Amino acid sequence: MKESWKYASRQYQPEDTVVSIGSVFIGSGEPVVIAGPCAVESAEQIVETALAVKEAGAHLLRGGAFKPRTSPYDFQGLGAKGLELLAQAREMTGLGIVTEVLDPADVPLVAEYADMLQIGSRNMYNYPLLRAVGRQDKPVLLKRGMSATLYEFLMSAEYILAEGNPNVVLCERGIRGFSDFTRNTLDLSIVPAVKQYSHLPIIVDPSHGTGRPEYIEPMSLAALAAGADGIMVEVHPRPHRALSDADQALTLTQFQEMMKKIRSFLEWRRSYGHSYLEHP
Amino acid sequence: MKESWKYASRQYQPEDTVVSIGSVFIGSGEPVVIAGPCAVESAEQIVETALAVKEAGAHLLRGGAFKPRTSPYDFQGLGAKGLELLAQAREMTGLGIVTEVLDPADVPLVAEYADMLQIGSRNMYNYPLLRAVGRQDKPVLLKRGMSATLYEFLMSAEYILAEGNPNVVLCERGIRGFSDFTRNTLDLSIVPAVKQYSHLPIIVDPSHGTGRPEYIEPMSLAALAAGADGIMVEVHPRPHRALSDADQALTLTQFQEMMKKIRSFLEWRRSYGHSYLEHP
Amino acid sequence: MKESWKYASRQYQPEDTVVSIGSVFIGSGEPVVIAGPCAVESAEQIVETALAVKEAGAHLLRGGAFKPRTSPYDFQGLGAKGLELLAQAREMTGLGIVTEVLDPADVPLVAEYADMLQIGSRNMYNYPLLRAVGRQDKPVLLKRGMSATLYEFLMSAEYILAEGNPNVVLCERGIRGFSDFTRNTLDLSIVPAVKQYSHLPIIVDPSHGTGRPEYIEPMSLAALAAGADGIMVEVHPRPHRALSDADQALTLTQFQEMMKKIRSFLEWRRSYGHSYLEHP
Amino acid sequence: MKESWKYASRQYQPEDTVVSIGSVFIGSGEPVVIAGPCAVESAEQIVETALAVKEAGAHLLRGGAFKPRTSPYDFQGLGAKGLELLAQAREMTGLGIVTEVLDPADVPLVAEYADMLQIGSRNMYNYPLLRAVGRQDKPVLLKRGMSATLYEFLMSAEYILAEGNPNVVLCERGIRGFSDFTRNTLDLSIVPAVKQYSHLPIIVDPSHGTGRPEYIEPMSLAALAAGADGIMVEVHPRPHRALSDADQALTLTQFQEMMKKIRSFLEWRRSYGHSYLEHP
Repeated sequence: MKESWKYASRQYQPEDTVVSIGSVFIGSGEPVVIAGPCAVESAEQIVETALAVKEAGAHLLRGGAFKPRTSPYDFQGLGAKGLELLAQAREMTGLGIVTEVLDPADVPLVAEYADMLQIGSRNMYNYPLLRAVGRQDKPVLLKRGMSATLYEFLMSAEYILAEGNPNVVLCERGIRGFSDFTRNTLDLSIVPAVKQYSHLPIIVDPSHGTGRPEYIEPMSLAALAAGADGIMVEVHPRPHRALSDADQALTLTQFQEMMKKIRSFLEWRRSYGHSYLEHP
Repeated sequence: MKESWKYASRQYQPEDTVVSIGSVFIGSGEPVVIAGPCAVESAEQIVETALAVKEAGAHLLRGGAFKPRTSPYDFQGLGAKGLELLAQAREMTGLGIVTEVLDPADVPLVAEYADMLQIGSRNMYNYPLLRAVGRQDKPVLLKRGMSATLYEFLMSAEYILAEGNPNVVLCERGIRGFSDFTRNTLDLSIVPAVKQYSHLPIIVDPSHGTGRPEYIEPMSLAALAAGADGIMVEVHPRPHRALSDADQALTLTQFQEMMKKIRSFLEWRRSYGHSYLEHP
Repeated sequence: MKESWKYASRQYQPEDTVVSIGSVFIGSGEPVVIAGPCAVESAEQIVETALAVKEAGAHLLRGGAFKPRTSPYDFQGLGAKGLELLAQAREMTGLGIVTEVLDPADVPLVAEYADMLQIGSRNMYNYPLLRAVGRQDKPVLLKRGMSATLYEFLMSAEYILAEGNPNVVLCERGIRGFSDFTRNTLDLSIVPAVKQYSHLPIIVDPSHGTGRPEYIEPMSLAALAAGADGIMVEVHPRPHRALSDADQALTLTQFQEMMKKIRSFLEWRRSYGHSYLEHP
Repeated sequence: MKESWKYASRQYQPEDTVVSIGSVFIGSGEPVVIAGPCAVESAEQIVETALAVKEAGAHLLRGGAFKPRTSPYDFQGLGAKGLELLAQAREMTGLGIVTEVLDPADVPLVAEYADMLQIGSRNMYNYPLLRAVGRQDKPVLLKRGMSATLYEFLMSAEYILAEGNPNVVLCERGIRGFSDFTRNTLDLSIVPAVKQYSHLPIIVDPSHGTGRPEYIEPMSLAALAAGADGIMVEVHPRPHRALSDADQALTLTQFQEMMKKIRSFLEWRRSYGHSYLEHP
C-alpha cells in the first residue's frame, strides 16, 4: 500500500482518534452500537424504533432521510421531513442521530439536524461532498466504497481531514464479490489493517455487509472480536414492510436478544482494557 | 437481471438512440473516436494534442478540467481555466469537447463550455449529479462504476433520462478485479448486453480499462468488433510527463498508427452496414 | 508481474510457438476454430455436430468424455465410450479431437484417442495432472483457472513445458466476478498480455466466457480482433436438451451463420499478415 | 443458492456432524486449534514446532509433505520423507497430524501416516481426488477454492460424502479479490452460512486468509466469535526462513501469546454452551 497521505496516517498521529458525539465516544476502546431503520418512514416507525434500541442499549440512532437508491423510482426518503422526525426521536430518547447526506448543497441542512453525517458507500469517491463535510464541524461516518482499496478509503478520509474536520469514523460495510450466500462480502480484515495504518476509529455494518438478518449477530460479534470500535445495525419494527432494504433489518426483539450477547462479549473484551487492541 | 426501469430499456424504445454532438453522431452504426489527454495541463499541451488527434481522424476531444483524484494532494485539474483552454482547442480544430463534471453546482459552468458532459466512474452512483446533468440539455457520457452491475449502470442512465435529457452515451472503462497485468479488467461482454437490454449507445475506454498503452490498440479493435459505438482513448504529447495517469496514454504517433488500423477495420465492419450489430 | 519462470517466457523463446495438431496449426498467425458439444452424449449427437461444424469451417472438434461437474449427481460424461465416439466422428470428418482429462491415471487412455488433451479451468492448479500431460507428447490445451492471475496461468503452463512437452495452447474462458449479465467475465486483455510475456498461443472460449449464446458471435469477433490465435465454441444440435451446459451452446445453424462473419473478418485480418499481431 | 445436494445438507442431517481425530473432536461446540508450519522442512523444525504448539494448547499438528506450488521450481515438499517426520513429531507429542494430498495415487500413502487428509484450495474442484479421499476412512479437511461459491464448496464435500466417508471438515481460507492489504479476503460470513445450510463443521485459516501475521490474532478471534469450529494457523520457529509462505507464519512465541487470549475468549464462549451457535 502506498503511504503518501498525511493526516489520516498512524505516522502523523500515533495515538488513536476518539470522536465524540455528545456523550458518546467512538474509538475510546469501548465499542458503540448504532441502530435504526434504513430509512425514516414515519413518526411512529422512527420513534418506536428509537425507544426500543435505546432500551436495548444502543448508543446512537441511525435513519436515512435522503436515500441513494439504485432506481429513481424507488422510495428516495422523506428529505427535510425525515430530518425533523429524527430530531423528534432524539428529543424523546436522547440518542444522537446519524443520517446520510448525498448532495454538497444539502450539507448545511443535514448538519443542522444530525449529530453525525454519514457518507454512504456510493459517495466514497464523491470528492466535492467529502470536502463539503470536511468544511463543517459535525463528525462524519465514512462508509467504504463497494470495491474500494484500503488506500482509497483512507484517502477519502484524508479529503475530509484536509479541510479541517478531524472527526472521521470509518465504516466497513461489505465489498462486492461473487458470493451466493450474502449480498456483499464483509471484509473484517480491514479492521486490524485500519488500526495499523491509521489512527481513525472503524466500525462495521453487518446489515449491508451480509444482507441477511440471520448472520448479523455472528458477524457483529466477529467484528467486535476483530477489534472494531462499534457496529451499525439496521433495526425495523416490521422488516418485511420496510420501504428500503426490506427483510434485511433485525426486528426490535431480535436486536434486544443480540444486544444481550454483545454486552456479555464486551464485558469479556473490557477485561483486557485497551491492550485488547494492541494488535497489530 | 431485473427489468423494472423504463426509459433506458429496449422495450420502451426499440430503435437505437443516436446522440448528436454537433455533426458527430454516436449510435448511428458508424463508430466515433474520442481522444485527448486525461487532464488539460496547458494551452500548448491541449492544442498540440487536439490538432494531432483531429488529423489522425478523431471525432471529439476529451480532456479533464475538473479531475477526481484519489489523493487530495494530487493535481486536481485547472478548473475553469481548463474549460477555457478546451474551448480554445475547439476553436482551432472544430472538435467537440467532452469533459467531466464532479459537482452538481458546477454543471451550469461546465455545460457552458462542453459539448458533452462526462460523469466519471467514481460518480456513477452520485444521484444528485446525475439528476443535475439530466436537467440540462448537453449530451452526457456516463462511465460505468468500478464494480457496477449492468442493472445499476442502466439505472444510473435512467436517473438522467427521467429528468428529461435523452442524450446519454454509456462507457465501459474496466472493472475492479484481481488482475496482475492490467489496471482494471475491461469487460467487453457488456457491449452486446447493453445492445440487448437498452437502446442507448455504448463506447469503450481501453486506456482506463487496461492502464497499459501497449494493449490499447488490440482492445480498441476488440471493442469495435464486439459492436461498440466508439472508443475513448487517452493521448498525450509526452505521456511520461502527464500530470494525471502518467504513462497510460498513447503518444501522438502511436495514436496515428492505431487509427490507420482502426480505419481499415471500420471499412470492413461498414461493409456489413447496420446488420453488423444485429446481435443479439 | 513476477518473471521467475523459464520455458514459457518470451525472453526464453522470442519467436512464437506454433502447435500442430495434424495439419492444423495453432499460433501461426492464422486463427483456428474449435467447435463441438460440451459433452459427447451419443453417436448421433457427436457425428451430426462434427459434420456440421466441419462444413461450416471448424478446424478441430471438441467434446467431453470425462466431465468435471459441480454436483456428483450430474451427468459425468460417457468416459471411455465417449472417447470411442469421438474417434468415430474423427474418422468420418477428418477433424482432430480435443477432449478433457481429469485424472493423471487417465492420461494414457485419453492420449490414445485425443489429438489434443484439454486441462479444464478447475484443474489449472492440479500439478500432478499438469506433470502427467507434460510427460506425454500430445499437445495440451490449458484453460485459465476461474480466478487465476496471468503469472499463475503461465506457471501452470511451465509445469507442462518443464516435463518436456512444448506444445501448450492457452485458453481464456472467463473469470469469476459479480456480473449480472454473463456467467463469467471474459477477460480479453489477457490476449495481448500473453503475447507480450510468452510465446505460447492463446485462444478464447466465449461459450463458457459468457454463458450466453447471443453474445458468442460478438465476443468471438472481439477475441480475434484482439489477436487471439483461435476460438473454442460450444455447438450442439439441440442446445436446450444438452446434458451439460444446457442452453449455452450455439445451434448448428447459428454456428454456420457466425462462421460466415468470422471468415470475412479473418480475410480482413489476414490482409495485415503477421504484422497484425505486432503488438505489444 | 441451489439446494440439490443430499448428504451435506442440513435437511438430510439436522444434527451437527462431529468429526473425531483420535481424542480430538471437531464440531462438538468446543473449537480446536490446528497449528504448524506450512511445509515440513526438517526433523528439527517440525519437532520443535510440534512441542511448542502442543504446549501452547494446540490440538492437532499441520505440516505439508506434498506442497502445491505456483512455480515448478519452488520447494515442492519432502514427500514421503516429510510424512515420516510428521509421524515422528506425533510420536513425541501425541498430536494428530493433518497433511495435504495432491494426487489420487498418493492417497493410500498419505492416509497411512496422516490422521486427517487435507485437500487444498487448488484442488477443491479436483473430483477424482475428492472421490479418492471419499473411498478411504481418514477424516478429510476440505479447503474452500479461491473463488468458490458456497454451493460449489458444499458440493465438493458432497463428492466425498457420496463415496462413503462422512468425516469432512470445511475450511475457509480467504478468497481472491482486489485487496491491497491482505493476500486474500477472509470471508467469515461463510461460517454462519455453512451452519445454516449444512451440518458439517467449519474452521478458518487466517494465515492464508490474510497472509499477514499481524492480523492472525484478531481474525482468529473473529472466526471463533462468528461460530467457527476451530482455526488452523501457520506457526514456524523462524518464519522469515520458511521454505514456503515465508513471513506469513507466527513465531512460536507469538502463537503462545495468541493462545492465551483465545483460551480466555473460549472460556467466555463456553459460558453459552451450545446455544452460542444457535444462529442462524
